[in-house]
Amino acid sequence: MRDAEPASKAKRARHGVSTRDRLIAVALKLFTERGPDRVTTAQIADAAGINEGNLYYYFKTKQALVLVIFDRFEAEVDRLLESPRRDSADPAAYATFLREWFEIVWSYRFLYRDFMSLLATAPELRRRIRAISARLRAPVKTLMGHMRAAGLIAISDEELDALLANVWIVSTYWVVYLDVQEGVRALKKAHLEWGIKQVSSLFTPYLTPLAREWLDAQAATT
Amino acid sequence: MRDAEPASKAKRARHGVSTRDRLIAVALKLFTERGPDRVTTAQIADAAGINEGNLYYYFKTKQALVLVIFDRFEAEVDRLLESPRRDSADPAAYATFLREWFEIVWSYRFLYRDFMSLLATAPELRRRIRAISARLRAPVKTLMGHMRAAGLIAISDEELDALLANVWIVSTYWVVYLDVQEGVRALKKAHLEWGIKQVSSLFTPYLTPLAREWLDAQAATT
Repeated sequence: MRDAEPASKAKRARHGVSTRDRLIAVALKLFTERGPDRVTTAQIADAAGINEGNLYYYFKTKQALVLVIFDRFEAEVDRLLESPRRDSADPAAYATFLREWFEIVWSYRFLYRDFMSLLATAPELRRRIRAISARLRAPVKTLMGHMRAAGLIAISDEELDALLANVWIVSTYWVVYLDVQEGVRALKKAHLEWGIKQVSSLFTPYLTPLAREWLDAQAATT
Repeated sequence: MRDAEPASKAKRARHGVSTRDRLIAVALKLFTERGPDRVTTAQIADAAGINEGNLYYYFKTKQALVLVIFDRFEAEVDRLLESPRRDSADPAAYATFLREWFEIVWSYRFLYRDFMSLLATAPELRRRIRAISARLRAPVKTLMGHMRAAGLIAISDEELDALLANVWIVSTYWVVYLDVQEGVRALKKAHLEWGIKQVSSLFTPYLTPLAREWLDAQAATT
């Protein structure tokens, strides 16, 4: 175990950070391929080309790796929320937001697919998921408000509340649904497109003729 | 342990079946209140007024009780699927189907709320959930077809497929959503109404003026 610890802070600065990042990248890759339940720390160390003792220097448990990956997921959601151009009535603003959000979902898709076992083993994630959900909802509600003011969607306040809740349900659980109810375990890019389409389809019936014209014009130019 | 076994088949016929049923009812009640993870077989035996050895005569494990309750849930879904009057274009047929289905969900709500930990401990349920999901989808699709033919809903085939998938996602995961993302652990009847409203709201934007007139007339008479 002695040589698992880098000899000095300087050495750690040179080598430690990149080993840590490599371990996180390898863990994310293996978790995505097989799910955290079917990956051992020994396999992660092996795939990263280090010995297991060295892995334990960085991460005491597999759970610690899951939580660090969740930190990164959360940081990406934060960056999405901080990006500007939310203050728009352009339907493209919503489409862009949705796609950027699903790009994050794609990178961290194991969190969605293995949502059930993750929450069972790390109940502390509930609080953080709740916070992310609440913070993501606000900009979408703002966007919808702008679109409604611009005559692009026709929706009552009550319908909007029901719609927003359904958006969160479909956004979060479409991967579990595909897994449990459709038998899709290995997500492909086509499934990501399917997820985007499922969420989009919640909005489309509320689009006004004006918005549909705009969308048709967009489709014609691409 | 000796006296845990009913002395004869005749005695079992008189007392055994009812003890078994009582254990199932007590387990369902405690699972609903606290979730299977927080209920022990000792507590179930105690609440049923029998000793634990006697409980083991009927159910070897807590898991066995969960599976028997799942059998009953499945049987109720089967009865719903076998009931007639699905062959209708009347929007009331859909509303009735939805309500009957949610009455079943209400009785077995712990299965929905604790879906995540149940699947983690009983992965064999995946196959059965998949089968139930597939069988429930068919009558809803048929109902939608009748309503569309009668000019009550205006929806394309592609929109209908997307709608049906969203119906299953929202129907199955609204309870988990309320728990994980809204912090609702103890479901009240008002939450059941909320769930029905969330699923209904997926359909309402597709209703034609004819259907809306019908619904308004219905609302006026109640």
